[in-house]
Amino acid sequence: MALKFEILKRIGKTRLGILHTKHGDVHTPAFMPVGTCGTVKAMMPESVAATGAEILLGNTYHLMLRPGADLVEKMGGLHKFMNWEKPILTDSGGFQVMSLTGLRKLKEEGVTFRSHVDGKKFFLSPEESMKIQHKLDSNITMCLDECTPFPASYEQAQKSMQMSMRWARRSRDAFIDRDGYGIFGIQQGSVFKDLRDESAEKLKAIGFDGYAIGGLAVGEGQEKMFEVLDYAPMSLPDDKPRYLMGVGRPDDIVGAVLRGVDMFDCVMPTRSGRTAQAFTRFGAINIKNARHREDPRPLEEGCDCPLCKNYTRAYIHHLQKCNEILAVMLLTWHNIRYYQRLMQGLREAIANDSLEAFCQQFYADQAKGDIEEI
Amino acid sequence: MALKFEILKRIGKTRLGILHTKHGDVHTPAFMPVGTCGTVKAMMPESVAATGAEILLGNTYHLMLRPGADLVEKMGGLHKFMNWEKPILTDSGGFQVMSLTGLRKLKEEGVTFRSHVDGKKFFLSPEESMKIQHKLDSNITMCLDECTPFPASYEQAQKSMQMSMRWARRSRDAFIDRDGYGIFGIQQGSVFKDLRDESAEKLKAIGFDGYAIGGLAVGEGQEKMFEVLDYAPMSLPDDKPRYLMGVGRPDDIVGAVLRGVDMFDCVMPTRSGRTAQAFTRFGAINIKNARHREDPRPLEEGCDCPLCKNYTRAYIHHLQKCNEILAVMLLTWHNIRYYQRLMQGLREAIANDSLEAFCQQFYADQAKGDIEEI
Repeated sequence: MALKFEILKRIGKTRLGILHTKHGDVHTPAFMPVGTCGTVKAMMPESVAATGAEILLGNTYHLMLRPGADLVEKMGGLHKFMNWEKPILTDSGGFQVMSLTGLRKLKEEGVTFRSHVDGKKFFLSPEESMKIQHKLDSNITMCLDECTPFPASYEQAQKSMQMSMRWARRSRDAFIDRDGYGIFGIQQGSVFKDLRDESAEKLKAIGFDGYAIGGLAVGEGQEKMFEVLDYAPMSLPDDKPRYLMGVGRPDDIVGAVLRGVDMFDCVMPTRSGRTAQAFTRFGAINIKNARHREDPRPLEEGCDCPLCKNYTRAYIHHLQKCNEILAVMLLTWHNIRYYQRLMQGLREAIANDSLEAFCQQFYADQAKGDIEEI
Repeated sequence: MALKFEILKRIGKTRLGILHTKHGDVHTPAFMPVGTCGTVKAMMPESVAATGAEILLGNTYHLMLRPGADLVEKMGGLHKFMNWEKPILTDSGGFQVMSLTGLRKLKEEGVTFRSHVDGKKFFLSPEESMKIQHKLDSNITMCLDECTPFPASYEQAQKSMQMSMRWARRSRDAFIDRDGYGIFGIQQGSVFKDLRDESAEKLKAIGFDGYAIGGLAVGEGQEKMFEVLDYAPMSLPDDKPRYLMGVGRPDDIVGAVLRGVDMFDCVMPTRSGRTAQAFTRFGAINIKNARHREDPRPLEEGCDCPLCKNYTRAYIHHLQKCNEILAVMLLTWHNIRYYQRLMQGLREAIANDSLEAFCQQFYADQAKGDIEEI
């Protein structure tokens, strides 16, 4: 296969693995920071690498609008353009396009839409999405699909999933195989087990390098999401990476890893970094809160990121009050580092046969923390 | 003296020197990036140090409002608070306060003003400014003065200068001497030679660790400024550092170094970094300009900053178009590095007896450059 996935160890449904790509290895379970427009917002790429991140997610929708896939290709591909030499996964553009309510028209052939930036008309089909992701030089290309909205009736979910499966076939056919590059299919089916199973069967019949679980984290809540994750990953191939798209909060990730998921992406650590919110071992903190004004402590005792090593909560609070860019830079760095420490902790716990103890400690810490609602 | 200044070499009026402080040495001619609110905007302090900057300027006005001098003192001083272990110079707060037209009331005793942030009332006098700068743990404290507006009549300039000299006396008296810390007087007198001379005499009679030239770069234009700099620095002590406040563009700095100035500060490199403008050997560039859209070249050939080493103009143009914070981070870094390279070039040229050739090359490069108006 074009992408090699090794499973090193299993504990229950949980797996420790390595995904080998042309641009390097990804140790799983893995979290991918999001680099929407060819940059992880407010981070130098070398700083992203320093957090331990081994793979980034790029957004096809944003990059096809600005600067355009042709320009990125001309500049040597997305890795070179954005100075990130490690692996990159790109989404298909579908998720963003489908959410352009009123600006897009969906047909079997593909989606016609208008750019949110300047109103320019674009067309996205499975074939177009493959072409764009190829030009971007993405290590992991995602099939174009429709992320079924929640809630959906059984009939809506079925119809949407079945179109996505036809698009998966067209995506696979249009994808150009290369060593160290691969394509992932995306399971849909909303919260209906038989639709999830049907989707998995169809994807397996096509054959992919990895399998994503789509259509979750779209408003159904953690309980419902975990209900689906109790069965959905199990219908996907056991020897391929499983990727839960757009998830999530730290406890979402831990719960999904326990249910057999290997890969994650989410804007939460980066977006929260731009709104004064920090993830810590003891829950979330909003550094704008007045109680941090004179607090000489680090944001999170024991964290090795530059924010926690070199600054007080009082300083970050001050930067935030003054709307200083450095607050965003440091909080984003901390949050990405927090997520990477969490993934590293999970990987080590699997390796050391201490996954249960790790998770108990994780939940206890989060619960006893001085948790503020994000 | 509390601050030791060594002059290593002279060429004409130009000097090569080292200013020794408690927090390290400053090689002159030196440019100080501005860290208004306890951060050089969009820069990690380790990155500021990596540009070659050996000293920062902090703003007393901004820091007294937020987070307040008492808090900074409680946190161990400004160096520790902002994680900058090298020297810091603080201004007196006077310049910002005086520009709060309508919000401030100036008397012999001091200035009463309202914060631009929340309208809270403050009082700033020479004694208060000294107290605040002491609490900030500033290595170089500036006297409180009135920056005489331009244009001013002879009488206005005289009256303003004479009050500034009485305030200089009070500042010196209130300043607490410590090893490795010092206080600079500020010459005023607008564009009138005899007032500049009178101001210099009064400052010398008081005795300072260094002498600033104030009241320039306030709208008089480069020609007029250079006219004043033809004589103003010469009336200040020959064995102490001379600091031209708030200057300037690269060619302002070169012209002032040739006229005997040792130290500079300006928001230009940092502010320009936030508005897509870059300084280069061949003049200023606005990276927003459409002609950079597909340009695979570095911003400035030969520059060793991360922007020029790792990215194309096309990428920075793209980031700028998307309002990405990384554009600000990289452009600010480049601009500060450009200023530091300029200062380093000047210092090496003095050391190597090639100052004239250096300046000829500098003017020729700037003139032949693809200059865009900033």
